[in-house]
Amino acid sequence: MISTTDPRLRSFVPAEPESHFPIQNLPYGVFRPPGGTPRVGVAIGDRVLDLSVLASRHLLDVPEAEHVFSQGSLNAFMALGRTAWGQTRRTISHLLRSDVATIRDDIELREQTLLPIEEVELLLPIEIGDYTDFYSSRHHATNVGSMIRGPENALNPNWVHLPVAYHGRASSVVVSGTNVFRPRGQRLTAQGDAPSLGPSRAVDFELEVGFVIGTGNTLGHPVSIDQAEEHVFGVVLVNDWSARDIQKWEYQPLGPFLSKNFATSISPWVVTLEALAPFRSEGPRQDPPPLPYLAGTTNRTFDIHLEAVLRTSRMPKGQRITATNLRHVYWSFSQQVAHHTVNGCNLRTGDLLATGTVSGPSPDSLGCLLEISQGGKQPLALATGETRTFLEDGDQVTLTGWCRGDGYRIGFGEVTGTVLPAREV
Amino acid sequence: MISTTDPRLRSFVPAEPESHFPIQNLPYGVFRPPGGTPRVGVAIGDRVLDLSVLASRHLLDVPEAEHVFSQGSLNAFMALGRTAWGQTRRTISHLLRSDVATIRDDIELREQTLLPIEEVELLLPIEIGDYTDFYSSRHHATNVGSMIRGPENALNPNWVHLPVAYHGRASSVVVSGTNVFRPRGQRLTAQGDAPSLGPSRAVDFELEVGFVIGTGNTLGHPVSIDQAEEHVFGVVLVNDWSARDIQKWEYQPLGPFLSKNFATSISPWVVTLEALAPFRSEGPRQDPPPLPYLAGTTNRTFDIHLEAVLRTSRMPKGQRITATNLRHVYWSFSQQVAHHTVNGCNLRTGDLLATGTVSGPSPDSLGCLLEISQGGKQPLALATGETRTFLEDGDQVTLTGWCRGDGYRIGFGEVTGTVLPAREV
Repeated sequence: MISTTDPRLRSFVPAEPESHFPIQNLPYGVFRPPGGTPRVGVAIGDRVLDLSVLASRHLLDVPEAEHVFSQGSLNAFMALGRTAWGQTRRTISHLLRSDVATIRDDIELREQTLLPIEEVELLLPIEIGDYTDFYSSRHHATNVGSMIRGPENALNPNWVHLPVAYHGRASSVVVSGTNVFRPRGQRLTAQGDAPSLGPSRAVDFELEVGFVIGTGNTLGHPVSIDQAEEHVFGVVLVNDWSARDIQKWEYQPLGPFLSKNFATSISPWVVTLEALAPFRSEGPRQDPPPLPYLAGTTNRTFDIHLEAVLRTSRMPKGQRITATNLRHVYWSFSQQVAHHTVNGCNLRTGDLLATGTVSGPSPDSLGCLLEISQGGKQPLALATGETRTFLEDGDQVTLTGWCRGDGYRIGFGEVTGTVLPAREV
Repeated sequence: MISTTDPRLRSFVPAEPESHFPIQNLPYGVFRPPGGTPRVGVAIGDRVLDLSVLASRHLLDVPEAEHVFSQGSLNAFMALGRTAWGQTRRTISHLLRSDVATIRDDIELREQTLLPIEEVELLLPIEIGDYTDFYSSRHHATNVGSMIRGPENALNPNWVHLPVAYHGRASSVVVSGTNVFRPRGQRLTAQGDAPSLGPSRAVDFELEVGFVIGTGNTLGHPVSIDQAEEHVFGVVLVNDWSARDIQKWEYQPLGPFLSKNFATSISPWVVTLEALAPFRSEGPRQDPPPLPYLAGTTNRTFDIHLEAVLRTSRMPKGQRITATNLRHVYWSFSQQVAHHTVNGCNLRTGDLLATGTVSGPSPDSLGCLLEISQGGKQPLALATGETRTFLEDGDQVTLTGWCRGDGYRIGFGEVTGTVLPAREV
C-alpha cells in the first residue's frame, strides 16, 4: 500500500507545488460553512474537505464517525487514539487520490464536501484543557538571559538539565485572525519607583510551535520518552503575544501572568505527526547529556522552516522580519511530554504544549522583537523608513511555516493577528 | 421575607450547633448515589439534598432546572448567573424549613431526596477551565521571602502593588479523599551541583482558600472591582500540594511547574457568597494604597477560621498543626478578579482562583510545613514524639474551615488527602 506521505501521490483537487496543503499533508481543522454548524474538515489545496458529510455517507470507517466529525472541536476525534487517526488519514488520502472516483466523479458529493477555504469560517480547532508553554530554544533563553543577567550568566543552571516551562492560560487562546487589544496593566514609570496602570508600551509577538495532545495519561502515571509521541496528535503555529513591560514588573517570583494571558493565537490547521514524519531532524547536540528519563531518542525534532511577517498601516504588503527553524530548538516534543508527566501530572485530550519562542543562531533568525530590538535598544528598520522596537497599534504579525519536500510543501498555513489600541475602560 | 442567612431559621433536617451544614449554609456539590449517575446536591446536616429529584418534580423554579441539576458538575447551574443562584437558594431554604411540609411530610419524597452523606460518593464539584493560584498572604510571602532573600528583602517590590499570581494546572485538581503519590522529579543532590531524578524529599501541603467563577467575562473586557463579586459563585478549601525540592530547582525564571502540578485537592462543597455574607471582614490595612482599579471596597474579605490536621500512621487521631484565618489575607477575591482581568484576560464559568497559602501573624498560624519547619531547619514535634520537616509516606493532611455564627457554623467540611509512596516506574 502506498504511504500517505509518498511524494508521488496526486489528488484530483489541484495543489500548486507551493501550496501548503497537498495530499501529503491533510491537516485537520474545524470550520463553519456559510449558514451551517461547526464541523471537522481537512485542508486540501484551496479547499476544505467536510468530514461530517463524508461520515454521514459512511465513507469514513472509524468508530462514531458521524459523531466525532460533526463536533465544534477535534477533541472527540483525537480521543479515539492513534489507530483511528491513522485509519482516517489513510481513508481520506485514498478518497482524494486522482485515481479514485468516489468523490472525484460524483458532482453532488464533490460540491457538498469540497468547499473553497475562503468561503468558510475557520474556528479554534481544539478545546484546550491546559496550555503549557516551554522555554526550549537555547538561543532565545541565552539572548533573554543575557539582557537580564549578562552574557556570563545568561542561562540559569537548571536550563540545560530540564525543559523549563510554565502554565499558560487556556481561556485566551484564540484562532488566527482574531485581533488583539493592547493590554493594560501595571508597569513601572520612567522613574522606575512606582507602578502605574496603563496600556503596555512593549507589546511583542513570540514565534512558537505548539503541539496538541491527542490522548492523555492517568494522573500518577508518567509517560516515558519512548511513548511520548504516541500521545501527540499534531502541530500548530503559535503566537504567544507578550507585554514586556508588564512582564518585567510582575514576573518575580512566580513567573509571567498578565503579560501573557491577554491572548495567544494559534493557526487553524493541525498538521499531524504522520504528515511530518519525512521531515525528522536531529536537533542540537545536548551537553550535558540529559538524565535517562529525557534521553534515548534520535531524530527527535522536525525540520520546519518558520517565518514572521510584519505589516504596518504604511506597509500593507509586509516585510519578513525573521526566518528560523524548529530544528534549532533544544528540547523536543518527546522530552517535553516526558518531563511534564514525570511527576505524575496528567495530560488530557486537547492540551496545548508550545516550544516557547523559537530563535535561531543568527541575528535574522530571532523569534520576538525583544531579541530583534535588543530589549528596545536597537530599533528594527523597516523598508518604509519606519522603525520598531515593539508593536504599534495597527501592526499585524503573521507567522507561517512549512516543511520542504521534493516538489511539494507540508505547510502550516498561517497565524495572524493585528494589535488594536487599548480599549477605553 | 426571612433572609436565608437568618440565625433563627431551622430545618426539619437536624443539624447540631457544631454541624458545618445548617440551613443557613446550603453549599452545593456533585455526588453519585449508590448505583446512580452524578448529580447536583446541597449539604444539609448529615444529609445531601438531591436537586435533580426536586427538579424532576418541578419544585425548583429556575430555567432548565432538570438539565442543570442532573449534570456531573455545577458548571451548567453556575452559568445561569446570580439571579438564578439566589432564586434557587431561596427555594431550597424554603423547602428545608421546619415549618414547610412539602418534603417534610412526604415520606417518599424525603427518602428520595435526602440521602445520608456517608452513603454517597462526593465528586469534584466543578469542571475547571483554568486554575490560578495567587500569593496573597503577606505573612506567607514574607516568611518564604525571608528564607530566600533574607528578612530585609523578604517582599519583592511588586508584592504590595499587585496580587502576584501564576497559572496552575487544571487537569490535576482532585476532590477531597483522593490520595496523592509522592512525585518524582529533578532535585539537586546533597552536593548541590547536579540534579538527579527521584522521589521528592520535601512534599508539603499548602492551606488555601479557593473561589469559583460562576459567570465569566468576554476576552478584552475587564471586570471592575465593584462588579467582581457578581462573578463569584462560591468558596472551597484548597490544599495545593507542593514539592519544595523540585520547586527550588525548577522555578527560575518562569515559576513553579512540576513542583505543584502533580495534585491540588479541593473540598467537595462550594459555599456560596450568599451564605458567607454575614461574615464579612475588613482585611489588613493596605499600605501603600492600591491603584484605583484595585481600590474601593470595604469589608473586602471574610472571617473564615481555617485549620490543618496531620495524621500519621502512629497518630491516627491526628494533631492540629495550624490554625489561621482568611481575614489575614492581604489581597481580596475582588482585587484578585479585578487584577486578573485588567488586561482583558477572560475568566470562564468553573475557573478556580485560590489565595495561595494562608498564613497568619503568629507561629501557630502558618499555612505550610515550609514555614512551620523554617525550611526544614526546625522540625515540628508531634504528640507521639515523632517529628516532621516535610510530609512522610502515609501522612494524611486534612484542612477544614468555618465561620462562627451565633449558635451555628457555616462550615466548609474538609479536604483531605494521604501521601502515598512514589510509584515504581
